[in-house]
Amino acid sequence: MLYFNCDYMEGAHPAILERLAATNSEHTLGYGNDPYCEAAREKIRQACRCPEADIFFLVGGTQTNAAVIKGFLKPFEGVIAADTGHIGVHEAGAIESGGHKVLTIPHQDGKLTAQGVQRYLEAFFRDGSCTHMVQPGMVYVSHPTEFGTLYTREELAALRQVCDDYRLPLYLDGARLGYGLAAEGTDVTLPDLAALCDAFYIGGTKVGALFGEAVVFPQKNRLPGFFTLMKQQGAVLAKGRLLGIQFDTLFTDGLYLKISAHAIAMAKRLKEILSQNGCPLWFDSPTNQQFAVLTPQLQQFLDGKVSYEVWQELEDGCIAARFASCWATRQEDLTELERILKNAVH
Amino acid sequence: MLYFNCDYMEGAHPAILERLAATNSEHTLGYGNDPYCEAAREKIRQACRCPEADIFFLVGGTQTNAAVIKGFLKPFEGVIAADTGHIGVHEAGAIESGGHKVLTIPHQDGKLTAQGVQRYLEAFFRDGSCTHMVQPGMVYVSHPTEFGTLYTREELAALRQVCDDYRLPLYLDGARLGYGLAAEGTDVTLPDLAALCDAFYIGGTKVGALFGEAVVFPQKNRLPGFFTLMKQQGAVLAKGRLLGIQFDTLFTDGLYLKISAHAIAMAKRLKEILSQNGCPLWFDSPTNQQFAVLTPQLQQFLDGKVSYEVWQELEDGCIAARFASCWATRQEDLTELERILKNAVH
Amino acid sequence: MLYFNCDYMEGAHPAILERLAATNSEHTLGYGNDPYCEAAREKIRQACRCPEADIFFLVGGTQTNAAVIKGFLKPFEGVIAADTGHIGVHEAGAIESGGHKVLTIPHQDGKLTAQGVQRYLEAFFRDGSCTHMVQPGMVYVSHPTEFGTLYTREELAALRQVCDDYRLPLYLDGARLGYGLAAEGTDVTLPDLAALCDAFYIGGTKVGALFGEAVVFPQKNRLPGFFTLMKQQGAVLAKGRLLGIQFDTLFTDGLYLKISAHAIAMAKRLKEILSQNGCPLWFDSPTNQQFAVLTPQLQQFLDGKVSYEVWQELEDGCIAARFASCWATRQEDLTELERILKNAVH
Amino acid sequence: MLYFNCDYMEGAHPAILERLAATNSEHTLGYGNDPYCEAAREKIRQACRCPEADIFFLVGGTQTNAAVIKGFLKPFEGVIAADTGHIGVHEAGAIESGGHKVLTIPHQDGKLTAQGVQRYLEAFFRDGSCTHMVQPGMVYVSHPTEFGTLYTREELAALRQVCDDYRLPLYLDGARLGYGLAAEGTDVTLPDLAALCDAFYIGGTKVGALFGEAVVFPQKNRLPGFFTLMKQQGAVLAKGRLLGIQFDTLFTDGLYLKISAHAIAMAKRLKEILSQNGCPLWFDSPTNQQFAVLTPQLQQFLDGKVSYEVWQELEDGCIAARFASCWATRQEDLTELERILKNAVH
Repeated sequence: MLYFNCDYMEGAHPAILERLAATNSEHTLGYGNDPYCEAAREKIRQACRCPEADIFFLVGGTQTNAAVIKGFLKPFEGVIAADTGHIGVHEAGAIESGGHKVLTIPHQDGKLTAQGVQRYLEAFFRDGSCTHMVQPGMVYVSHPTEFGTLYTREELAALRQVCDDYRLPLYLDGARLGYGLAAEGTDVTLPDLAALCDAFYIGGTKVGALFGEAVVFPQKNRLPGFFTLMKQQGAVLAKGRLLGIQFDTLFTDGLYLKISAHAIAMAKRLKEILSQNGCPLWFDSPTNQQFAVLTPQLQQFLDGKVSYEVWQELEDGCIAARFASCWATRQEDLTELERILKNAVH
Repeated sequence: MLYFNCDYMEGAHPAILERLAATNSEHTLGYGNDPYCEAAREKIRQACRCPEADIFFLVGGTQTNAAVIKGFLKPFEGVIAADTGHIGVHEAGAIESGGHKVLTIPHQDGKLTAQGVQRYLEAFFRDGSCTHMVQPGMVYVSHPTEFGTLYTREELAALRQVCDDYRLPLYLDGARLGYGLAAEGTDVTLPDLAALCDAFYIGGTKVGALFGEAVVFPQKNRLPGFFTLMKQQGAVLAKGRLLGIQFDTLFTDGLYLKISAHAIAMAKRLKEILSQNGCPLWFDSPTNQQFAVLTPQLQQFLDGKVSYEVWQELEDGCIAARFASCWATRQEDLTELERILKNAVH
Repeated sequence: MLYFNCDYMEGAHPAILERLAATNSEHTLGYGNDPYCEAAREKIRQACRCPEADIFFLVGGTQTNAAVIKGFLKPFEGVIAADTGHIGVHEAGAIESGGHKVLTIPHQDGKLTAQGVQRYLEAFFRDGSCTHMVQPGMVYVSHPTEFGTLYTREELAALRQVCDDYRLPLYLDGARLGYGLAAEGTDVTLPDLAALCDAFYIGGTKVGALFGEAVVFPQKNRLPGFFTLMKQQGAVLAKGRLLGIQFDTLFTDGLYLKISAHAIAMAKRLKEILSQNGCPLWFDSPTNQQFAVLTPQLQQFLDGKVSYEVWQELEDGCIAARFASCWATRQEDLTELERILKNAVH
Repeated sequence: MLYFNCDYMEGAHPAILERLAATNSEHTLGYGNDPYCEAAREKIRQACRCPEADIFFLVGGTQTNAAVIKGFLKPFEGVIAADTGHIGVHEAGAIESGGHKVLTIPHQDGKLTAQGVQRYLEAFFRDGSCTHMVQPGMVYVSHPTEFGTLYTREELAALRQVCDDYRLPLYLDGARLGYGLAAEGTDVTLPDLAALCDAFYIGGTKVGALFGEAVVFPQKNRLPGFFTLMKQQGAVLAKGRLLGIQFDTLFTDGLYLKISAHAIAMAKRLKEILSQNGCPLWFDSPTNQQFAVLTPQLQQFLDGKVSYEVWQELEDGCIAARFASCWATRQEDLTELERILKNAVH
């Protein structure tokens, strides 16, 4: 069986496991007050060219989004997001559980546009009863998006401008950030994100770590008390060094980008294989998630041979299927996929 | 100046003020434990033909919706509502503040359809990742809706059936219930609501009272602890008898329906005046809210003479305007409106 | 039967009912945007000698406390209060429902002391694990307290100093504020409160109104968005003028203080009658709530004749009973109470 | 430097690291739907002799407590706990953040007593205004407690009886459960807990795992929707198998109890060393946490040589210090501690 369902089916990059084993019997203070976390923070600050940044490590994406958003918003504010945004759909109401509404705007290829946000805000404040409605309190984007698409630096700068005009924080969910940074043709870098966002997170879970996300607040003390908020939200790991060790490893010698680039190369190959073997692309994604249309016959043929994620049901029994590569995808699995598809087609 | 903005611009029906004055110096226990509340409850039970109903009095609609919905839902559940529903738009995130998402379905004339809810639920539970999403936990409808429209008994029965199939409570927001019950052609009665809903509220604020809403749980002890929940939500009035006196008055000798019928008669006249004098109906509503299209010229002409609510901006500078009648609307104001409009047109 | 249970057993001062009747058929905008609310705000600003104050009207005390406290606190902060404070005991967890812990300090005659708060804060921040604990985010006091006691100006100034040292807002719950301002020997005035507090509320429900509390933020725009927060918390009255009319009446010609002074005179007489007729004072209160010890025999004797509130069970079957006067207490009821007690004793 | 600060300063038992490495490149479904989680659940069910139990894996203790308590309580209910309970003190208000008050009762050696809970409940429901107060909705105990003490089976059975009388769920926080089960003289076993509790959790973080807690609901489907609640609370690990692998390892060949027994043996030795070398026991604990009194001189002497946790400041500059053993404590570290202390004393 070949697995292309998602990018969190394997464990961690071997270098991480080695460091966990090598440090296993050391004694360190808990909750992130250890030298490994501090070293990882320093390396991330350098990668972001942002020497004053506050950096916190959390275990998973839902809790990261919930904590950051709760930290930024006043009780009567909501977060603007694309209607496809992860926080509005697949986090079981974590934002609402914290008391806040997700204010959705129709997406463009999974993205918010500056123009769309601007129009939303203009209309909101023009409405005579706007004080009776949830106030827009921040803007949430994901990069890559749920569709694998990417913002350009110009698009992010335009969003930043709208946020400035309305004094809204801009927060970027980077669950798959590595695959965005390593994509072909992107002009968005970590220092760009540090310059444009009030907060963003560098995803580890889907990019080589066992688990872990690193939240970056480029401006020091941007959210005072954030550690206590994390603790309250159940998002502080007792043995915090496990996160420090992982991110320190990922940010040593550019490992994070190296393994991301591998996933991108694999995704490019995946795209060729799919599109050239009877699986037309449903959506053109420059990152590690590829979306292809599968006929009912092909679905049946692949059953038990290739595993993927059903993304959306289309007409005539076709589906849009997601095939994800990741840091761990092997060339031989792609070769095998190609062989299988060729058998199917002919 | 003529005022048709909304149905809460005046005080209360004079009979209510008289009773408040007559009972002013009496001593009663607080928080709804007084003979007036008990008498009002008994009269409402009779009007609903539901002798076992639990009945609670709250001050306003937003707090009523928030308390009832919080009472029914588990923490990870949301409430299904039309995308135009009051709870999703004009209550400043009260439902989310209580931790719950409003799960919206596109409306049909302001209403949910049984078919639409059914499709939503089928699709939800078919989705492989549905346990990662907010669980649908109850259904919210308003009657009349935000557009002044009404459900038929058959439509409500169909919604009830879907709710039964999925074991979801059905809750009806009756902020303007009187105007629904008194509308021409409706076949929905209070006993019908008691038979079909797990909870509904009889609106007082917009139908003759100074303030106040009466929540009816037809099934005794349907939500144990609801009083404490109300207290926690800040929805218990210390001098609870003020609510009892008002509802007792409204449910004595059919006053609630009588004054509602007056508003409906005024609305019918309003509809004629508008549509026959250059203000085509934007929407056909059988209840006390009427919606008409006003040209820019007419808007300018009415400025300072007639007050209404801008409902929605249309193209070419036209607007959809809401003109509301209520229990207090006077025949002479309509005559004057007609005179003004005739001057405008000719 | 004589009723001394509490100070919210009657309706409203007759002047309020008259104004409600006189204005009943007027049309005004909703939600506090009416001339009566504006006039009341202006009179309160003058009474507080605080021309810039933001003033909001809410219906009841629990919702007022919940909204103000939610407005001041960050998600990971709690509110410091005496362990007897109303918010910690008799509001059904309204503060916790908003996500915040009540951080209790043992009371001194129902009061917080500056020294007690200082010690608490010093110990808190000295604790190495204080970032794992709820951060103290504001200080709550009530004046009069639950025991009817009062702060002196000096005591409040000392609390203010501690709050300044730790940058904490000071909030004063004035559910019975009139009875505090009118007490004999107090040196605390409305302008003092405006000078010393970040927010306080002037209670109407227990001091002559049908219902209603007026929140005063002496500093303009101290809590931006507070109206929307109120709306979200279900604390905005649609017919907001009902609150404006009541507070405008209470703050015309010093009515609020006049009727409070009456209650204090009645309480003084009550104290004499109780203590001189076999009901020793349990606690010496300068305001409208008096606490006396009743023997089992006396309790039995008074049964069906005099109604009071059981405050606390003492040993040997004795109880501490609360007898409350209010703006509506009549001289003749006290005379009758004296007669009854004399019969009991002899 | 010797470290006895706490029981989460090292990584994991080597067998766990080995299994993580061995399984690293396997593909499994996420979120706990993998064979390792299933195997671990089955082994835990067997250890609890509870073949129908629902078992969920979470990452840390605070999130576990928050999720379980939120799952059991209605919005207006609170959780009864000892005033020393972890949920009330060191979890940054996680329970209040979920909307619930922690209802504290004075502890007895860190424990709740059935009698104390019974008295609390009797007094609560006797209070005439109890519907205005947070309703007691469940009982929380920790075993071992914050003081390292243990319940007897009889004590737990008595608590169970009170819970049954008042229909309250009983929940046991087992962050250090292994050290409780392996303590000398205890008669409480996993099957006992399964028989007596509505839910409890088996702590991994402090007992040999990198991280992870296993919640056991002995009765199948006791909390429907708990997975979605976990997801909403940010408590679901994407690579869920990491938790399954750890608990499967801990529950293979009795590893969990074996390493716990080692910690207990080390704690016994620790107790001897401390008490025989000038550090009288402050508290007698049968588990892995030992508490000793250190004079100022001794504190100074140990500085830079031995690390411990300051538990409480006592008079005369003495402190109560916590020395914790754990699964990883080495005999040689204890020998070294003894040597140091002997030098200090003489």
